Amino acid sequence: MIQMTLTQIDNYGPWTVTPTPRAEADLQILQSELYADLQRQFAAKGGLVFFTRFDNMLAVTNGVSMEDHRRIQKSIGNRYPITVSMGVGASETPYEAQKLATNALQSYGGAQSEERKEVLAIDSMTHSEDSFVQIAHIDINGITDTLTDIIPAYDTNFIVNRVQHFLMKKLIDEGSLLFFIGGDNFMSPCNGLEPEGLLRIVEEIKDEINISLKAGVGKAPTAEKAANLADLALEEIRGGFTYNLVHVMKNKD
Amino acid sequence: MIQMTLTQIDNYGPWTVTPTPRAEADLQILQSELYADLQRQFAAKGGLVFFTRFDNMLAVTNGVSMEDHRRIQKSIGNRYPITVSMGVGASETPYEAQKLATNALQSYGGAQSEERKEVLAIDSMTHSEDSFVQIAHIDINGITDTLTDIIPAYDTNFIVNRVQHFLMKKLIDEGSLLFFIGGDNFMSPCNGLEPEGLLRIVEEIKDEINISLKAGVGKAPTAEKAANLADLALEEIRGGFTYNLVHVMKNKD
Amino acid sequence: MIQMTLTQIDNYGPWTVTPTPRAEADLQILQSELYADLQRQFAAKGGLVFFTRFDNMLAVTNGVSMEDHRRIQKSIGNRYPITVSMGVGASETPYEAQKLATNALQSYGGAQSEERKEVLAIDSMTHSEDSFVQIAHIDINGITDTLTDIIPAYDTNFIVNRVQHFLMKKLIDEGSLLFFIGGDNFMSPCNGLEPEGLLRIVEEIKDEINISLKAGVGKAPTAEKAANLADLALEEIRGGFTYNLVHVMKNKD
Amino acid sequence: MIQMTLTQIDNYGPWTVTPTPRAEADLQILQSELYADLQRQFAAKGGLVFFTRFDNMLAVTNGVSMEDHRRIQKSIGNRYPITVSMGVGASETPYEAQKLATNALQSYGGAQSEERKEVLAIDSMTHSEDSFVQIAHIDINGITDTLTDIIPAYDTNFIVNRVQHFLMKKLIDEGSLLFFIGGDNFMSPCNGLEPEGLLRIVEEIKDEINISLKAGVGKAPTAEKAANLADLALEEIRGGFTYNLVHVMKNKD
Repeated sequence: MIQMTLTQIDNYGPWTVTPTPRAEADLQILQSELYADLQRQFAAKGGLVFFTRFDNMLAVTNGVSMEDHRRIQKSIGNRYPITVSMGVGASETPYEAQKLATNALQSYGGAQSEERKEVLAIDSMTHSEDSFVQIAHIDINGITDTLTDIIPAYDTNFIVNRVQHFLMKKLIDEGSLLFFIGGDNFMSPCNGLEPEGLLRIVEEIKDEINISLKAGVGKAPTAEKAANLADLALEEIRGGFTYNLVHVMKNKD
Repeated sequence: MIQMTLTQIDNYGPWTVTPTPRAEADLQILQSELYADLQRQFAAKGGLVFFTRFDNMLAVTNGVSMEDHRRIQKSIGNRYPITVSMGVGASETPYEAQKLATNALQSYGGAQSEERKEVLAIDSMTHSEDSFVQIAHIDINGITDTLTDIIPAYDTNFIVNRVQHFLMKKLIDEGSLLFFIGGDNFMSPCNGLEPEGLLRIVEEIKDEINISLKAGVGKAPTAEKAANLADLALEEIRGGFTYNLVHVMKNKD
Repeated sequence: MIQMTLTQIDNYGPWTVTPTPRAEADLQILQSELYADLQRQFAAKGGLVFFTRFDNMLAVTNGVSMEDHRRIQKSIGNRYPITVSMGVGASETPYEAQKLATNALQSYGGAQSEERKEVLAIDSMTHSEDSFVQIAHIDINGITDTLTDIIPAYDTNFIVNRVQHFLMKKLIDEGSLLFFIGGDNFMSPCNGLEPEGLLRIVEEIKDEINISLKAGVGKAPTAEKAANLADLALEEIRGGFTYNLVHVMKNKD
Repeated sequence: MIQMTLTQIDNYGPWTVTPTPRAEADLQILQSELYADLQRQFAAKGGLVFFTRFDNMLAVTNGVSMEDHRRIQKSIGNRYPITVSMGVGASETPYEAQKLATNALQSYGGAQSEERKEVLAIDSMTHSEDSFVQIAHIDINGITDTLTDIIPAYDTNFIVNRVQHFLMKKLIDEGSLLFFIGGDNFMSPCNGLEPEGLLRIVEEIKDEINISLKAGVGKAPTAEKAANLADLALEEIRGGFTYNLVHVMKNKD
């Protein structure tokens, strides 16, 4: 079971243009600092946040308790001009978990409701005995030599975005999510997706848009450990210790 | 003429996995704080940064001098475990400007070069008499009611990413760039693109993926002012003061 | 028993002037962001950090484990140009605890040693059964009306510093510490100090420099809870619910 | 002429306890991030901020215009749960300048007024032709070997605070200010103080509390340059290039 938390800034859209549109630079700073802040606080409990749309952020939060969520919400409310509401859901697949989390939050009112404020809507949470996170860390083979150092920066960005788009489309059919994490890197919470399934996707993308990907997969009770194992698995591919384009490492604790 | 700056973290990839992969949460915090930091420093000079790939960030920097760039680089070097190199280019279109900026930086060595460090590579800069920035602020009509409050958070994210992908594809043909800035918002540095051209793109996207967009366009000597005018133009559409899906406001200073 | 942690930036002095003196503004930003960062991470575990000298920070850390300390050190090392070493000690009084923490760290090498790096030196830690923190929150009566709104800002600052100096001198004799926390506020970890002792100090300062203080005291198993109770106790004095200048609240969990 | 800005958080005290006392850790993070943020923004214009009491911060701001002040205020208002008001004054001595700045702000209402918000109260500003800043960077000789590495961390902190208290007392008589900047370092905006006067103070402190200080003094049109020259002057003493305990460097631009 994977636990996911949706963090949503309360009534953010209207705030950004009241009384007149706020400086875009300020909004960008606010959003990225809020993301860094939530990341730091969830990470202290073994969770991992993805910036998603910045005003809506999805996180894998196995092991992060109700009380932890409350403390984080309160801490944000004390230090930002905005507040955040959260929904939490647990399920067999990441897609289902975020769906439950979203439903729970939506039932308390809309994102631009003037009444809804600092809501914590819990549909379900994982327990230590059933907690399980599978994360794939995917990157583009040799991007520095073939793209970053050769073509214009925006063109590389365009290709990375294209890869993201294709990966998202294919992974969602498997109940898996996909988030861009910077550079040429993506992370996919993918409970339930077999290595063969991931390999097939990697091969399809090679065929369709001629981009070579590789993926390290980690399996562990928390997002932090799963992501770390995924990194190590990816390093084994990079280091030539395996010829597979998809390599899996499991938690040994 | 629009001036663009490419900021690239020096030798970042190898650093993230030395001696072993660093915690993903820490890297995410580092990247988003670096982005917020650069934003604050460029904004103090009238510029605007887009997070792009986080290890490579593009910015519109009309009016930001060579000395300003140096100071920002040094300030980052003093406070982060990494350093940044920059390339600067000025041209008639944003696409050309970032291409010149990238070329200039690439000529000093690769992104993973162990020698290249804190380089400032200037191809060309704008001057006060020819400085001109056109920025479009594009968003999705009624996204809160039709998507955010109704469907799962990831599905909304998926649709926003799809819109981004289509916009990028169409705008690049016009020499214009497109960056996601959070929520359902995009900003497009688009010197040289006529309102009719932008309207056509908006209509095509409506036809192809049935998503309604609107766009405010600002024109001014700096990115800050152009973005602000774009926001105001967008507010006029939202407020019903114009029936056009693309509305333009010009600097009156 | 109170547990205290000394966090020391490794070899910081030489770094600040290598190769030439770094911009003072950058050092100030680095130091205050490092403090905020440590605060956030220790607070997530119920601890409380005082900025002290910024390059050396003392914290009350009951309940923060060895593993937590390690994680925090590593996280700092991943995101700053410097690393931190830590010493931990537990004792009956805060003074003794910080002394043990300092001794433990000093035994690994000096603050400007080129070898010592990211050391975690643990002399002793509290356990859940003997964990106890007493914190006093002290402020100046009516400072806004009598000083801030009347005299020059620096003169108020001078008076606050004078109060700090007198409080430090008197509290150290009781084995208690005293930290400035902004405005006209001080926090004193003061295990073992009776309310009568604190009241006597408050009265002496009234006699000697004609400044009226009041103090809320909290007692709890963690710094977070003790500080919160101290705040509530201070609010009771402010609200006129008690005529005492020193008021105590205990944890009821 | 030196220009000083007083930045004051609007109605901060009441906010910190509304509706109940906010977590001390959150307030500490808020205050230190606000300080870092202001530092970064004033530094971009050649200014230098001192944390002072955190809710009241004094800064040397020669060359920072009215428009710059406005932009900084607005940027803070967009990203924090609080707003800031500012007073600005220019005079022959730092003490006089901060007095004028405070008076200007006080005339708009008290620090805990519910009406006063985001006020910018300008008494006077420097102009490029009369702009002059003199800053001394003072530190304690050999503190690492004699204190930090030998005695408990709090005792070193106590001694540093004692030095601060003595320096503040003596410098205020000369119209000079004194701020702690971390470690064993102090900065003193000291227009009008002759090197002989500063040397006398250093010698008095040696006599009275047996602590040896040294001071580098910088003179330049902006705080940034003056602080930098003060650092270089201090390095010359450290490096043995001069036997004087007070050494002066002037701007050569």
